Amino acid sequence: MTHKWTVFLSGEIHTDWRQQIQQGADAAGLTIDFVSAVTDHARSDECGEKILGPEENKFWYDHKASGINAIRTRTLIERADLVVVRFGDKYRQWNAAFDAGYAVALGKSLITLHDEELTHPLKEVDGAANAVCQTPEQVVEILKYVLLER
Amino acid sequence: MTHKWTVFLSGEIHTDWRQQIQQGADAAGLTIDFVSAVTDHARSDECGEKILGPEENKFWYDHKASGINAIRTRTLIERADLVVVRFGDKYRQWNAAFDAGYAVALGKSLITLHDEELTHPLKEVDGAANAVCQTPEQVVEILKYVLLER
Amino acid sequence: MTHKWTVFLSGEIHTDWRQQIQQGADAAGLTIDFVSAVTDHARSDECGEKILGPEENKFWYDHKASGINAIRTRTLIERADLVVVRFGDKYRQWNAAFDAGYAVALGKSLITLHDEELTHPLKEVDGAANAVCQTPEQVVEILKYVLLER
Amino acid sequence: MTHKWTVFLSGEIHTDWRQQIQQGADAAGLTIDFVSAVTDHARSDECGEKILGPEENKFWYDHKASGINAIRTRTLIERADLVVVRFGDKYRQWNAAFDAGYAVALGKSLITLHDEELTHPLKEVDGAANAVCQTPEQVVEILKYVLLER
Amino acid sequence: MTHKWTVFLSGEIHTDWRQQIQQGADAAGLTIDFVSAVTDHARSDECGEKILGPEENKFWYDHKASGINAIRTRTLIERADLVVVRFGDKYRQWNAAFDAGYAVALGKSLITLHDEELTHPLKEVDGAANAVCQTPEQVVEILKYVLLER
Amino acid sequence: MTHKWTVFLSGEIHTDWRQQIQQGADAAGLTIDFVSAVTDHARSDECGEKILGPEENKFWYDHKASGINAIRTRTLIERADLVVVRFGDKYRQWNAAFDAGYAVALGKSLITLHDEELTHPLKEVDGAANAVCQTPEQVVEILKYVLLER
Amino acid sequence: MTHKWTVFLSGEIHTDWRQQIQQGADAAGLTIDFVSAVTDHARSDECGEKILGPEENKFWYDHKASGINAIRTRTLIERADLVVVRFGDKYRQWNAAFDAGYAVALGKSLITLHDEELTHPLKEVDGAANAVCQTPEQVVEILKYVLLER
Amino acid sequence: MTHKWTVFLSGEIHTDWRQQIQQGADAAGLTIDFVSAVTDHARSDECGEKILGPEENKFWYDHKASGINAIRTRTLIERADLVVVRFGDKYRQWNAAFDAGYAVALGKSLITLHDEELTHPLKEVDGAANAVCQTPEQVVEILKYVLLER
Repeated sequence: MTHKWTVFLSGEIHTDWRQQIQQGADAAGLTIDFVSAVTDHARSDECGEKILGPEENKFWYDHKASGINAIRTRTLIERADLVVVRFGDKYRQWNAAFDAGYAVALGKSLITLHDEELTHPLKEVDGAANAVCQTPEQVVEILKYVLLER
Repeated sequence: MTHKWTVFLSGEIHTDWRQQIQQGADAAGLTIDFVSAVTDHARSDECGEKILGPEENKFWYDHKASGINAIRTRTLIERADLVVVRFGDKYRQWNAAFDAGYAVALGKSLITLHDEELTHPLKEVDGAANAVCQTPEQVVEILKYVLLER
Repeated sequence: MTHKWTVFLSGEIHTDWRQQIQQGADAAGLTIDFVSAVTDHARSDECGEKILGPEENKFWYDHKASGINAIRTRTLIERADLVVVRFGDKYRQWNAAFDAGYAVALGKSLITLHDEELTHPLKEVDGAANAVCQTPEQVVEILKYVLLER
Repeated sequence: MTHKWTVFLSGEIHTDWRQQIQQGADAAGLTIDFVSAVTDHARSDECGEKILGPEENKFWYDHKASGINAIRTRTLIERADLVVVRFGDKYRQWNAAFDAGYAVALGKSLITLHDEELTHPLKEVDGAANAVCQTPEQVVEILKYVLLER
Repeated sequence: MTHKWTVFLSGEIHTDWRQQIQQGADAAGLTIDFVSAVTDHARSDECGEKILGPEENKFWYDHKASGINAIRTRTLIERADLVVVRFGDKYRQWNAAFDAGYAVALGKSLITLHDEELTHPLKEVDGAANAVCQTPEQVVEILKYVLLER
Repeated sequence: MTHKWTVFLSGEIHTDWRQQIQQGADAAGLTIDFVSAVTDHARSDECGEKILGPEENKFWYDHKASGINAIRTRTLIERADLVVVRFGDKYRQWNAAFDAGYAVALGKSLITLHDEELTHPLKEVDGAANAVCQTPEQVVEILKYVLLER
Repeated sequence: MTHKWTVFLSGEIHTDWRQQIQQGADAAGLTIDFVSAVTDHARSDECGEKILGPEENKFWYDHKASGINAIRTRTLIERADLVVVRFGDKYRQWNAAFDAGYAVALGKSLITLHDEELTHPLKEVDGAANAVCQTPEQVVEILKYVLLER
Repeated sequence: MTHKWTVFLSGEIHTDWRQQIQQGADAAGLTIDFVSAVTDHARSDECGEKILGPEENKFWYDHKASGINAIRTRTLIERADLVVVRFGDKYRQWNAAFDAGYAVALGKSLITLHDEELTHPLKEVDGAANAVCQTPEQVVEILKYVLLER
């Protein structure tokens, strides 16, 4: 299998789960192109105002940022072979669920990653997933199995 | 415009926003085919176990229900010309955001409906919407405008 | 939900499961357009030779029939909202599994219907299904739930 | 023709037909990216439980494995220019027929590979194929012809 | 040909070309479903503010209106078999050219309607059209020919 | 099967094969929506000049006609469930082969209809067909089988 | 993110905005594949006549050129991840708006670039854009943010 | 423009037009991936029998060959950015017209190449083309213009 895989990592940005997956993949000798939205929260919120000019109205302030962020996320989800979506225990994380729905409608494979407590509220998202993981290690194990047959 | 519109109403199931939109549309003489997921919460949760047999494990209990519910929701979203997604102030409502992402990836028009307090957490979903409403009346006004030019 | 559903019934042709589903749906007041391949085995095997002329070689005899049968099955699967595939305990039934793969790639919802003994050999097909049923009654219950919310 | 071809080899895993095709292609100087599902039977059955945790119920044990295996097979079939599906004389091999249907619906070219005795039960699958082979050598000859014009 | 045609009429809103086409089609006994954007200029500009609330900033004022108008135009262009785009001698009419590009990318047939003086600036749009007309009567003649073979 | 079939009849216009198929279908009680290009040769050639004005250059004379004719043929092929293409023994009939290629790329079922002498030059077109017929009666028999199961 | 981005620059050809964006991207260390239509106005107008032979009629003179130019623009827009469309204060620039519509229908991200005075006539095009810029520097800032997260 | 173009050369195989285009492109410094069907007539006719075994019936002899040839042609047309189809003055060349229709339905750019005498019988194919050439040099000029802007 010489073609490189692209994996989009979506969702929660307050823990180091992306780094854990990437390090696990590196340690296993996997050469995967991991991509994601801009994960610096402040930068991601401010990008509209910073680049396109100030907005007094909070709605348009957010709207400008979300348009720019979508350039990145839509393009990268479309390139991805697999989308991993992480739900944490804080915040609404509607963008994560939106990404999951978007990916599934495009026919992408989906892995969700969350604690057992979130099983019930995530049942529709999990129902569309190929695998439901609780730890980044499990995601790495799936990647090793899928890419290296081990 | 003789072809009937189909509008999928997704999201929050604890208030009567669907009825308000439907009644407003009826009052305006609009002939729209309103569709939605099964909105009876208990029935929607139990359908897997009731039809396909009991599961001790809560995860599989939910999984069976979500597979059956997806038969309905995916088919109806694909038929819809427009998807309206309502976010309330309670619960995680990840299925609503998932539906929004799914609809946008299929190229459907999207209207979101929520209170102003939810503007920031919903910025990515709102950013993909044609219109962001705060009341069911506004949704009805859009439908009147779009279908009847008034 | 005024738009009629189309359900393609694929697979085993030696028991009356199609009639059971249809009668159950009728009894429940469901107005579904049930469609399927030509289910008269002899007719389905002979159609190529009968219409297009005899073939000594068994391979081409079958090939002619399968081309004609595909006109019907492909068109009806593409029209269907939902595909139900029944696997019995006899014969290879590779056409049933082929239909399932074809339907899933087109994004159709899938229900499989088979005895528990077939769970392991059907794991990839079941894995792509929204629901795995063991009796025609369960299929009818799903249709009632999905179309009538009961 | 500088663009490399990707060929997905699906189906029977108990003989060395994949190796024969690969060696024949190597001997002919073809540079093809051959891909396939995980072909180690035990590993393929166990992957769900091993990675995601144990299941008492055999159905869910299989379900978890099949979700993970689908990440690999769906992605690789979508990348493939050509899918070769081998049917042996043992086992149900419904996954092979499912892959064939999936590939055809995506517009992929299809070659089937099986003994003459299987002609009748495979008539629908063969009817959708570009070529029906009885030996791995024939598949190699087709690849040589298609890629090298010899 | 029992299936009714849907024709989207896009562009210039200051002359009665839409009425001329519709009357010509009626006179010829054609039963076509003519659709278009909301053609009342003031209403079309104001709809965002009127329904969703006032905006001081002219950019957001227009943005809200254009989101709502797109619900109508995108849905109707997707339904259409044929798109007719009229360019007049006044105003920029970029929305008309945008509709033409949108329609062509969706594989719709396109007729442009404009005076000879606009030939050069419209060369890319005309180059993508099935026919370039100078009068509404010519459009009607094409519809008669295409639907009635006269 | 309550949904009506649409069948596009393409190709040769100098014999009454279309009428034979339509009468055979009527006699069998089939309710099919038969559609085709404008089959009046002179009218089809002249439509560009007649509607859009004269051209001295024969190339542009034909070009204008072919653009208008494509509005009809593309739309009707896209609507069709099945395309029947008839090749006669005279003329080049490249438009018939073009229609066949167009239909196959859209995933339509294809029947070719021609004498045995044309087998070799039509091998690529026949190779993409579900059935290769020599008489209109055979086409009618296929339609009866496919729609009525007889 | 190892996959290179392709950005199509469409529209106005009388100022050096393309060079400014390219230089800004180079200075920021971005490795983007910038593509565009042939921007030499005379060459772009003459290409049909020069290559395919003279035309007395201005309409066909333009038609030949636009067919050739479309080979380049359609292919490059389809390859692009992002389309930037610049509207200047002179000329009709309908091809720019056509490109924008074409790109949006294909699901491409869109950035528009124009002065504030054009806000109202461009409201439909801007309404479909991810970002509306007034200077090439803003476009470069978006590219830096989207590709480099800064 | 760093991405390489792929150009499929379809049709007539009895003159050296492919070589002329390739040499002209080389001389101009163009790095294009030219692809085509197997152009050795005898080999192309025999490939089915040679690889898959003899057929007495001429129809099936051709059918086997055409299935194998389609593996190559369909894959390469799908990869192509541009399809050039050459019609000569001999033979029926229905496969060339089929390829043209197939390519256009996939949204590929099309160039036709033929003598002026064939203008009328090719009007539908030419009508779908971006450019109609009479000499291989003209095709080379278009490639130079489209890729190098000269």
